[in-house]
Amino acid sequence: MSLVTDFYAGRKVLITGGVGFIGSNLAHRLVERGAEVVVVDSMLRQYGARLENLDGIAERVDVNFSDVRDAHSLGYLVQGKDLIFSLAGQVSHIDSMRDPMTDLEINCHSQLSLLECCRRENPGVKIVFASTRQVYGRPRYLPVDEVHPVDPVDVNGINKFAAERYYSLYDKIHGVRSVSLRLTNTYGPRMDLVSDTKGFVGIFVRRALRGETIRVYGGGEQRRDFNYVDDVVDALLAAGANDAVYGDVFNLGHPKPLTLLEFVEALHEVADFEHEIVPFPPDAKAIDIGDYYGDFSKFQAATSWRPRVDVAAGLRQTLEYHRRLGVPDGSEA
Amino acid sequence: MSLVTDFYAGRKVLITGGVGFIGSNLAHRLVERGAEVVVVDSMLRQYGARLENLDGIAERVDVNFSDVRDAHSLGYLVQGKDLIFSLAGQVSHIDSMRDPMTDLEINCHSQLSLLECCRRENPGVKIVFASTRQVYGRPRYLPVDEVHPVDPVDVNGINKFAAERYYSLYDKIHGVRSVSLRLTNTYGPRMDLVSDTKGFVGIFVRRALRGETIRVYGGGEQRRDFNYVDDVVDALLAAGANDAVYGDVFNLGHPKPLTLLEFVEALHEVADFEHEIVPFPPDAKAIDIGDYYGDFSKFQAATSWRPRVDVAAGLRQTLEYHRRLGVPDGSEA
Repeated sequence: MSLVTDFYAGRKVLITGGVGFIGSNLAHRLVERGAEVVVVDSMLRQYGARLENLDGIAERVDVNFSDVRDAHSLGYLVQGKDLIFSLAGQVSHIDSMRDPMTDLEINCHSQLSLLECCRRENPGVKIVFASTRQVYGRPRYLPVDEVHPVDPVDVNGINKFAAERYYSLYDKIHGVRSVSLRLTNTYGPRMDLVSDTKGFVGIFVRRALRGETIRVYGGGEQRRDFNYVDDVVDALLAAGANDAVYGDVFNLGHPKPLTLLEFVEALHEVADFEHEIVPFPPDAKAIDIGDYYGDFSKFQAATSWRPRVDVAAGLRQTLEYHRRLGVPDGSEA
Repeated sequence: MSLVTDFYAGRKVLITGGVGFIGSNLAHRLVERGAEVVVVDSMLRQYGARLENLDGIAERVDVNFSDVRDAHSLGYLVQGKDLIFSLAGQVSHIDSMRDPMTDLEINCHSQLSLLECCRRENPGVKIVFASTRQVYGRPRYLPVDEVHPVDPVDVNGINKFAAERYYSLYDKIHGVRSVSLRLTNTYGPRMDLVSDTKGFVGIFVRRALRGETIRVYGGGEQRRDFNYVDDVVDALLAAGANDAVYGDVFNLGHPKPLTLLEFVEALHEVADFEHEIVPFPPDAKAIDIGDYYGDFSKFQAATSWRPRVDVAAGLRQTLEYHRRLGVPDGSEA
């Protein structure tokens, strides 16, 4: 712990999407560790940006409102940084099908643009890129490791994979060091409970908090792996601090995958609500990937990272945080 | 032959990049076959557009100057078409590294934009997309078949692969039918002999025509497969007419791969010039893929297509055409 911690003291760090869910949790931790943090965020509400996410550290981070699609401000912001955590993204699979050009602009165009900024203005910087297990599409075997074929089933997965490849290419050809982590379902304090196109976890947590009925699609037997956000932040920090991982791609994951119904059962332990099983809506069914859980042993071997929080403890902390904050109305389609 | 020919009589066909090398050859053939052809082209000289390419059919095709990056005109142009040949592209690997954002706009953004136009305005259209063997990167075995891992070594390969996946996704999810052909080195009449960042074939042919010394990089033992443009046009037409190929991806290729030196020897048969072996320039070396030749048996099984022209006959016809037309000055960097 202390080695990783010390690594960040005094480091100049840029977090894109730093006012969003994972970015803001990372910002809190980096401030604790003594890093000099600049967060850049477009404040697009539907992507999870919420200034309250920085409550407690607002005086100790430099917040810059800018969109990663804006190559001019990014070209300035990357200068002088030791590390960049590239977390800004459009994360909804459904939205990527409804509005594919926006997904392309944010997840593809902006990542290549960020790399061009670094190549010109700060080629010595190191970048940790938040990718997604969505690049694999429907698993051909489980758990999914990094040699599993890439076969994305939605625009989001295609664009995130292209971005991974840009990072890998700039690492190899231009020497702009980077590492990509393929995140799976992440939950925890500061998660976005408003947008309803980002997958079931946020919807389930909000409905549990509000005592509303949770609708589970397609039987509820689909298995998934869930990472508590503190574990994901640990992984991002471990990646950033570990020279051996640069130039490569790693899965995150959890040793105990759950069915959706088991996840709902865990929610029942910490909240009072009903649930029911309903058929898939057509647009969700079209891009559903069935069971998924990832093999994270490659990342564990490289960094010693492993998830420390199980779903019972993680959901308890998540619900406590959001009860204190107040629960938003949903915007379910 | 006659079945494929008949299929196109009276068909309404749009060719993007239709004033360029392969697009214009395709336009000639489609006009012969009685199709109603609209070619759309941005007339960017560095991408090979040259109005002389339409000499002989200018009165029988509808030429529309527009850039595939312009979603407004494309949204109109796709209406009422039976088939679209999506050939407009940035094809230089080197340029994709020097100016990656332009490659992304043309090869990635514009393809997704074209698909969105079709989804909205003409979901029943069928599309043949010209992809590239560059998606494979450095071959892990030879000949490369379609299950070979995709591991592109330059921005062009990444973006072309993303585009293939958009096409495949819209075929599966939105029912906009498409097929992708992964082209290899294509040569023939109307090829671009001016741009010098599109690979060695155009440079070699121009220098042979002008009696200038050909510089062969890195020993000349690298093997490649070469398709004469008439064979590529055959393949495009066979793909477009064959319902069984839609939703899939196919290699082109040639049964007789050649080393670069063997290709130069074949040029010596039809032109008078010197050649010398020189080391790789660094930017070309960084993205060189070594030996490549493709296995086209999957496409042959599906359509009976196979290349009919060998390099001796193909180069003779190429040089005859360009001698008649006049040989341009080069722009070698």
